[in-house]
Amino acid sequence: MSHDELRPVYFLSDSTGITAETLGNTLLTQFPAHNFDRHTIPFITTVEQAQSVVNIIDGRAASGVQPLVFSTAVSSDVRQTLATCRGIVVDLIGAHVGQLEQALGTQASGEPGRAHGLGNAARYQSRMTAVEYAMEHDDGASLRALEKAQVILVAPSRCGKTPTTMYLALQHGIFAANFPLVDEDFEREGLPKSLQPFVSKCFGLTTNALRLSQIRTERRRGSPYASLRQCGFELRSAERLYESYRIPYINSAAVSVEEMAATILQKMDLKR
Amino acid sequence: MSHDELRPVYFLSDSTGITAETLGNTLLTQFPAHNFDRHTIPFITTVEQAQSVVNIIDGRAASGVQPLVFSTAVSSDVRQTLATCRGIVVDLIGAHVGQLEQALGTQASGEPGRAHGLGNAARYQSRMTAVEYAMEHDDGASLRALEKAQVILVAPSRCGKTPTTMYLALQHGIFAANFPLVDEDFEREGLPKSLQPFVSKCFGLTTNALRLSQIRTERRRGSPYASLRQCGFELRSAERLYESYRIPYINSAAVSVEEMAATILQKMDLKR
Repeated sequence: MSHDELRPVYFLSDSTGITAETLGNTLLTQFPAHNFDRHTIPFITTVEQAQSVVNIIDGRAASGVQPLVFSTAVSSDVRQTLATCRGIVVDLIGAHVGQLEQALGTQASGEPGRAHGLGNAARYQSRMTAVEYAMEHDDGASLRALEKAQVILVAPSRCGKTPTTMYLALQHGIFAANFPLVDEDFEREGLPKSLQPFVSKCFGLTTNALRLSQIRTERRRGSPYASLRQCGFELRSAERLYESYRIPYINSAAVSVEEMAATILQKMDLKR
Repeated sequence: MSHDELRPVYFLSDSTGITAETLGNTLLTQFPAHNFDRHTIPFITTVEQAQSVVNIIDGRAASGVQPLVFSTAVSSDVRQTLATCRGIVVDLIGAHVGQLEQALGTQASGEPGRAHGLGNAARYQSRMTAVEYAMEHDDGASLRALEKAQVILVAPSRCGKTPTTMYLALQHGIFAANFPLVDEDFEREGLPKSLQPFVSKCFGLTTNALRLSQIRTERRRGSPYASLRQCGFELRSAERLYESYRIPYINSAAVSVEEMAATILQKMDLKR
């Protein structure tokens, strides 16, 4: 088969499918010349459900191109059924369980895993509380309980504060607030007053002026706010401000929210 | 070693570490009798960095309990260095690359994967736009562009609408709005007027009265709003409303936001 043909890929799971998708996609990024047609099938918990998934995959295999199958199903019944399909099955659990059983001297439970389940109830609840905190403290909306923030993101408008804050809260359970930096701050060459007691919790974002101008243009085409000149001024001023307060910062232009969040956790030494 | 001893676990990655954590934790849920002391070390991109991680793990190994190491590092130099450590190394990439090379008839690129990187720029941008949409349409805050919503979550206050909406947007790039159901809706036994043109996009949440009462009590102790009686009334009324409009719904009491999001994607057949 040529690389141009669309190779069907199935991410299968007895839970949400997120793990299968994520590791499967990491592996697929190693084969950039190929094109893939991705499907996720979550919540395959019974042999009957597994059999109907096998039928789908076999139907696809019959039409020409052998599908790739990434599975994180845990129950051995389900795994054995999925293994009978006519795809190339990459069993992301089965491949490693034996090694762990040997290392730990214990049999695997064989219970469907819930890496994305409620898990530890207190930990789950703290993530939900963190989301609530992030919503309340988005874009400088509230000064209440700012001392509870583990990190306060600061940046000019549209540098990625909100999605990064939400990701820190939702994925990592971090209490994160965010504050906009505006012309007034740049004229005073100082952080907003209400943030000054919390400088050590601040983390700055910056980006490239051209990119910021493009993003702002989508909101307010032709406005001074979106002009390259104004964007350049705000970013230079913000970076100067970060440096004068020794606030660590990151350029959001070439990295994802996931990467920014991981960097912030690491640089601020945050406990989850 | 007894099961009670704390086994050190390292999640290592040349990117964010999220994949290593997630699949590692799925595997660890198979060994519930053990206790683990978890550490994540992201962004290991050079042999020098890998060597300093090996030193950390070896130091820990020297103090008694052999660490478990889950790695998603992709570069073969980094992987070879990590493989020299005195932990039990579960190589989540190396174990599968060979199988894929054979299946696809192509050599793996060996470039560090960025499953959580920017990836496809348009897809990444649409996730960020989805977060913006979700923020703007949280808790019925805006009726603007409601026709753009792919799904509208409806539920009484504190059933988990906001975190689920945020997860749909941030992880899956879904345009999701959410609306509270309130006494007025229950008295009329009808959906809010502004939602009626969009019934087919609605998805309901419910929970258990006791749990809802506990959550509301944290907010407003002793209020009628938090009373078991009021919570029971609202949930029964909401469920009746979902059924009369044939709105699919899920009980959020025993499932995580990740599980709810996966269920919503599946039941509403949403395209990401």
